[in-house]
Amino acid sequence: MTEPAWLTVLTTTDSEEKARTLARGAVDARLAACAQIPGPVTSVYRWQGVIETGEEWQVLFKTTAERYDELEAHLVAAHDYETPEIIAVPVVRGSERYLAWVSAETAPAATP
Amino acid sequence: MTEPAWLTVLTTTDSEEKARTLARGAVDARLAACAQIPGPVTSVYRWQGVIETGEEWQVLFKTTAERYDELEAHLVAAHDYETPEIIAVPVVRGSERYLAWVSAETAPAATP
Amino acid sequence: MTEPAWLTVLTTTDSEEKARTLARGAVDARLAACAQIPGPVTSVYRWQGVIETGEEWQVLFKTTAERYDELEAHLVAAHDYETPEIIAVPVVRGSERYLAWVSAETAPAATP
Repeated sequence: MTEPAWLTVLTTTDSEEKARTLARGAVDARLAACAQIPGPVTSVYRWQGVIETGEEWQVLFKTTAERYDELEAHLVAAHDYETPEIIAVPVVRGSERYLAWVSAETAPAATP
Repeated sequence: MTEPAWLTVLTTTDSEEKARTLARGAVDARLAACAQIPGPVTSVYRWQGVIETGEEWQVLFKTTAERYDELEAHLVAAHDYETPEIIAVPVVRGSERYLAWVSAETAPAATP
Repeated sequence: MTEPAWLTVLTTTDSEEKARTLARGAVDARLAACAQIPGPVTSVYRWQGVIETGEEWQVLFKTTAERYDELEAHLVAAHDYETPEIIAVPVVRGSERYLAWVSAETAPAATP
């Protein structure tokens, strides 16, 4: 398997409004072709030795491997968590038309 | 990492009924062992230069790499979007029993 | 692409309470750094030749490849399905801080 050309990138935040802002910001900056926000998820994690449970909101971006570093930098800057979840999973197959759309939508806008 | 033998395949449509039809059709045709439909997701994307937000329904299929091309062709034909999202992510580890079940359920039915 | 060092691992069960128990058990045992439980999903699958539809709950774990085998064994033991879904997808990119946190949280606890 060679380096995948497309990725899905997942981040998580603590309100629907922040999830929408992260989604919109990345699509607006052409760092992702689209983003999907499922309903709230229950997160389970350890904090200072105790297992905590909280409600969070995921955002799933579709982008190219080429744009990943810029998307990550954008999310880190836009996020208000100290250590936000940002993980990318490879897209190894896909409809050619859809993947071409992802590439086109994430191409840096031509300067006029 | 070699070519993965199993995949999860994600598509998105604009109603729960259509999501159920896509799920049922692929499982019925043995192109996926199972499909999961989360609740509605909020989709954010650019359309004619404007950022749009809409409600959509995801369908997540579990299948083999061997059956991917047929599943994709089935989804493209069954879908009413012009450029439907169809992306596949590799399964690199998994319970042996479960993956054997996915393979068995997606094996073409023997002709009597 | 080399063997990924981090994974997301998905399992599914039939109640929210069981999903929370699976999530909490794996995090407590340091077999996953965190787990997310989306709302219920509609599952579509074939059972004894008939297509069935049911409500299930997914649990998505974040862990290291190193801890995968132990996480799988834990889930198989904790699960009450005969053939539970346990599948892992590779994390190929991610924020360095977040991935370091996943590694730290899943490191076996030092014996005092």
